[in-house]
Amino acid sequence: MTTQPSKELETFPNPNPERDFLIRIDVPEFTCLCPKTGQPDFATFQIEYIPESRCVELKALKLYMWSYREEGAFHEAVTNQILSDLVAATAPRFMRVTGKFNVRGGIYTDVIAEHRAPGWISPDYITLP
Amino acid sequence: MTTQPSKELETFPNPNPERDFLIRIDVPEFTCLCPKTGQPDFATFQIEYIPESRCVELKALKLYMWSYREEGAFHEAVTNQILSDLVAATAPRFMRVTGKFNVRGGIYTDVIAEHRAPGWISPDYITLP
Amino acid sequence: MTTQPSKELETFPNPNPERDFLIRIDVPEFTCLCPKTGQPDFATFQIEYIPESRCVELKALKLYMWSYREEGAFHEAVTNQILSDLVAATAPRFMRVTGKFNVRGGIYTDVIAEHRAPGWISPDYITLP
Amino acid sequence: MTTQPSKELETFPNPNPERDFLIRIDVPEFTCLCPKTGQPDFATFQIEYIPESRCVELKALKLYMWSYREEGAFHEAVTNQILSDLVAATAPRFMRVTGKFNVRGGIYTDVIAEHRAPGWISPDYITLP
Amino acid sequence: MTTQPSKELETFPNPNPERDFLIRIDVPEFTCLCPKTGQPDFATFQIEYIPESRCVELKALKLYMWSYREEGAFHEAVTNQILSDLVAATAPRFMRVTGKFNVRGGIYTDVIAEHRAPGWISPDYITLP
Amino acid sequence: MTTQPSKELETFPNPNPERDFLIRIDVPEFTCLCPKTGQPDFATFQIEYIPESRCVELKALKLYMWSYREEGAFHEAVTNQILSDLVAATAPRFMRVTGKFNVRGGIYTDVIAEHRAPGWISPDYITLP
Amino acid sequence: MTTQPSKELETFPNPNPERDFLIRIDVPEFTCLCPKTGQPDFATFQIEYIPESRCVELKALKLYMWSYREEGAFHEAVTNQILSDLVAATAPRFMRVTGKFNVRGGIYTDVIAEHRAPGWISPDYITLP
Amino acid sequence: MTTQPSKELETFPNPNPERDFLIRIDVPEFTCLCPKTGQPDFATFQIEYIPESRCVELKALKLYMWSYREEGAFHEAVTNQILSDLVAATAPRFMRVTGKFNVRGGIYTDVIAEHRAPGWISPDYITLP
Amino acid sequence: MTTQPSKELETFPNPNPERDFLIRIDVPEFTCLCPKTGQPDFATFQIEYIPESRCVELKALKLYMWSYREEGAFHEAVTNQILSDLVAATAPRFMRVTGKFNVRGGIYTDVIAEHRAPGWISPDYITLP
Amino acid sequence: MTTQPSKELETFPNPNPERDFLIRIDVPEFTCLCPKTGQPDFATFQIEYIPESRCVELKALKLYMWSYREEGAFHEAVTNQILSDLVAATAPRFMRVTGKFNVRGGIYTDVIAEHRAPGWISPDYITLP
Repeated sequence: MTTQPSKELETFPNPNPERDFLIRIDVPEFTCLCPKTGQPDFATFQIEYIPESRCVELKALKLYMWSYREEGAFHEAVTNQILSDLVAATAPRFMRVTGKFNVRGGIYTDVIAEHRAPGWISPDYITLP
Repeated sequence: MTTQPSKELETFPNPNPERDFLIRIDVPEFTCLCPKTGQPDFATFQIEYIPESRCVELKALKLYMWSYREEGAFHEAVTNQILSDLVAATAPRFMRVTGKFNVRGGIYTDVIAEHRAPGWISPDYITLP
Repeated sequence: MTTQPSKELETFPNPNPERDFLIRIDVPEFTCLCPKTGQPDFATFQIEYIPESRCVELKALKLYMWSYREEGAFHEAVTNQILSDLVAATAPRFMRVTGKFNVRGGIYTDVIAEHRAPGWISPDYITLP
Repeated sequence: MTTQPSKELETFPNPNPERDFLIRIDVPEFTCLCPKTGQPDFATFQIEYIPESRCVELKALKLYMWSYREEGAFHEAVTNQILSDLVAATAPRFMRVTGKFNVRGGIYTDVIAEHRAPGWISPDYITLP
Repeated sequence: MTTQPSKELETFPNPNPERDFLIRIDVPEFTCLCPKTGQPDFATFQIEYIPESRCVELKALKLYMWSYREEGAFHEAVTNQILSDLVAATAPRFMRVTGKFNVRGGIYTDVIAEHRAPGWISPDYITLP
Repeated sequence: MTTQPSKELETFPNPNPERDFLIRIDVPEFTCLCPKTGQPDFATFQIEYIPESRCVELKALKLYMWSYREEGAFHEAVTNQILSDLVAATAPRFMRVTGKFNVRGGIYTDVIAEHRAPGWISPDYITLP
Repeated sequence: MTTQPSKELETFPNPNPERDFLIRIDVPEFTCLCPKTGQPDFATFQIEYIPESRCVELKALKLYMWSYREEGAFHEAVTNQILSDLVAATAPRFMRVTGKFNVRGGIYTDVIAEHRAPGWISPDYITLP
Repeated sequence: MTTQPSKELETFPNPNPERDFLIRIDVPEFTCLCPKTGQPDFATFQIEYIPESRCVELKALKLYMWSYREEGAFHEAVTNQILSDLVAATAPRFMRVTGKFNVRGGIYTDVIAEHRAPGWISPDYITLP
Repeated sequence: MTTQPSKELETFPNPNPERDFLIRIDVPEFTCLCPKTGQPDFATFQIEYIPESRCVELKALKLYMWSYREEGAFHEAVTNQILSDLVAATAPRFMRVTGKFNVRGGIYTDVIAEHRAPGWISPDYITLP
Repeated sequence: MTTQPSKELETFPNPNPERDFLIRIDVPEFTCLCPKTGQPDFATFQIEYIPESRCVELKALKLYMWSYREEGAFHEAVTNQILSDLVAATAPRFMRVTGKFNVRGGIYTDVIAEHRAPGWISPDYITLP
């Protein structure tokens, strides 16, 4: 595996596909560039998902998050893009991506986007905090 | 864009209208005047919304919040006014505005108002915290 | 308006009766007397309500809370009394009063009482935290 | 009333039986003995209930909690015993007892038990936090 | 009982099987080895369950958690394994295991897995926090 | 001992006068009246002292603090008065009184006053936090 | 006394000039304008002083802080100006002014300035936290 | 070693007497009886010391603290007694005992006592927090 | 002023050189590259200084911190470099730079470096926290 | 460099030996064995030092801390041993090692040991927190 930033999201087989279980990943080190000013933006991301057959490999996820370091990215679009890329790579039963962006102009912004597999029913005992 | 206080609320197209996602904005720097005494009031505002086709532009939002600096405003009315103005500008699927006003006379007051687009059903997987 | 303690609860017209919105008021400065020993008791009160046509005036509320300073009051009874008085004055759609009483004999006590207007249905989008 | 430890749980009439309201009591000073080693155990207890016709008297509750000081008690059994005794004394609409036991062997244990009066329906507006 | 690490999970009879009650156990001292690098991993585990006829003995649980000290274990697999072993030993009505793994490569990971006895219905008054 | 408010400050003999040791007392329940408006003021007091031959009796201290409930008192004056009264009653080697007054007009005020017995030297190992 | 913003700093006689004591005042509601952009700035101020013969009147202090609302002010200059004005009004033995300015451009700034009366020696028992 | 409460304080040789180093021990589980009312009192104790030739054995310390469970003890006296007993057992270069007693009558009390070996000079690099 | 990263540190005249006062600046958004692996590192920086004749301009400081984004930098060296560059630009009476680096390999590192102008004596009333 | 546990403590040259500066390292993942029972112990270590000519390499430090995983170690002895090993490897001007050991038998223990180079004087502007 390379240690270069990369859009590749490697996965590994879900060890317990017979059971709905939640994986919650916190990535406090995210930076991209403001598309308007070119100046650095910083955010913390949280990824929560219930895997189907594939789990995301953590080192690959780190390189993926790194890949935004030199890219211009709007808050709303980048959060949705990360969700779409992770859904494409892992086809999860459920996934939620939360981006918490650092203060700009005295204003703090969070963006929260969710995906749900078609036809999949959330069991009532899955409490998503 | 001007850097004067302004009631104009510029918007930009929602980059992902195919998906319900939540935008949460914290504005800790709000001040207006007490309509009874003319003295300054201070509050923190939180705006949460699920956009339909338009998102609110953050710099314009900052100028909008600034526009109350010289206005007299009651806690209940100003919170509802901000909600109404933001709904008029963005026509969101869902919006909630929370104003947390600084202590006056030993008493703290929050005002929380919500809007929901007619006919729009909150998906059960949108957990509004 | 007098600055004497008073059981009068002045109100003003709800500026936005067309919408369900929540007002949350924190009163950290409440003191009464223990009916058994005559010694001072201290509590923090929280009042949450969805107004119908009237809102409670905050300065009058302060004088009302002050009116308990020389009265003997049991924890359970005084919390219910405050709820009943506020309901009588404002006829709200919903109201919840929480009294958090300071430790006595190594024991802390909270009392939480709610009122709901007959026939009024809580909209599912009102999240009472 | 005696100031000796006692299994007696005195009660007083509920001042507002016409209304469902919650009483929450925190007892941070509980100690008993480990039935296996005879060494002291320490816990914090929380009691939450919606009274029917009787409320528990707080000074009697303190003496009751004291009564475990010289008794051997397992975590699970003592929490259920306290719930059963309080239910027997007050016949509440709802009661929940939570015991939070201090760390032993690097492990922390909480036990949470609830009672509900037969045929009593929790109103949807009672939010038990 | 031995003080060696052990996969044996001793149990004792549930003292109150007539009632649904929750036992919550926090184990902040868990360490295993990374299967890829052989280096130590650290985690905090939380186990929550509603017992049927057997409760897990806490000292045996400590030795069981210790048994992973020299084993290679992936985050997702080991959390599911602990759930499966505890379910096999106690056959609970409900059980949830949460593993909170220390930061690796700037990324934090939690894994949350639940079990529910077939045919068992969660009473609506069991609030699992 | 009476359970009426009282300016009497009972004392008891210092059990260890051969040693400099610190007693720190927190009194979170203090209320008096504003001399200008007659409205209630609230404060938290902390008393720290190194006794000489007398220690202040805690129940008497409680009644003493209660004695301000119906009195008008300025922040600066009342803190100094409490220090003077406690010094007169106990003649300590060292005493510090801190009054933390609740917010008024958006402003918080603390007053901190100290006394030191003439000729008494603070040992360098007394770290007054 | 007027309720207009004012540069006047009224004082009252120190009730206990025979003793060194500290007054600590927190003013969380301060706003001025950025001299470069004209946009609002927000800060929290703390004032600590040991009075000589005059104490600052709190309501006048509030009006004084309000007087900066429409003025352009640099962080460093305004903190020093407030110190100079308060020293001119009260001639204290010691005074320290701390301004904590809200984040701008991802950067937080505090400014801390102190004054000491010529020839006045800080007693070693004044611990300025 | 027995598992009965005991006034014996076993010690072991200081492994590094050539160096001044600090040992800080927190004992959150202390209970005794109020000498006036016979009711239980609870406290948290902290013991800090720089050993000379002996260190206190932790299991013996636990049994020693347990020995107060059935004894009446005043706050000031018991803190000084614990210091005296630990000094007699270990003859340390420095020792400080802090007792933090639970609230009684709305009042919290801490007692802090220190011992220093005759002729021993605190090195300036020992920062006792 | 450009909005490109820059090693230039613009300054402005100290408005109050007649007085020792402290400026404390927090920069939570710092990122550079690990010189060994090329992967991103993240840190929070704090700069504290007492200016002589020049203060550092905050927007220039932001661009200066940005200039490390594409550079390899060791924790110890970069903290000292920032101190040296700021001292060269402002010639302060006192300056302290603290770098708090994010966890790597389970280990957290802070680096704290100070500068003092030759011949300048810290006044005893400057309490550097 | 190996990824096996190792007692070797690699170092690198201090990049700024002309200046006293502090390096503070937190190692929250330390585990060894209790010499009496053979059961795992857990601790958090903090290392603070002012380097002379050598700094400790962080990856080597991680392997060194790992080397205690299978060793029996008393709290007091292992903290002093780590200090002695780090001093031998780096010959610092100043070093302080703090071990914070997890609760055992209801008791928490910290051990804090310091080293100072002979003849080296702590500059008064090094504030060791």
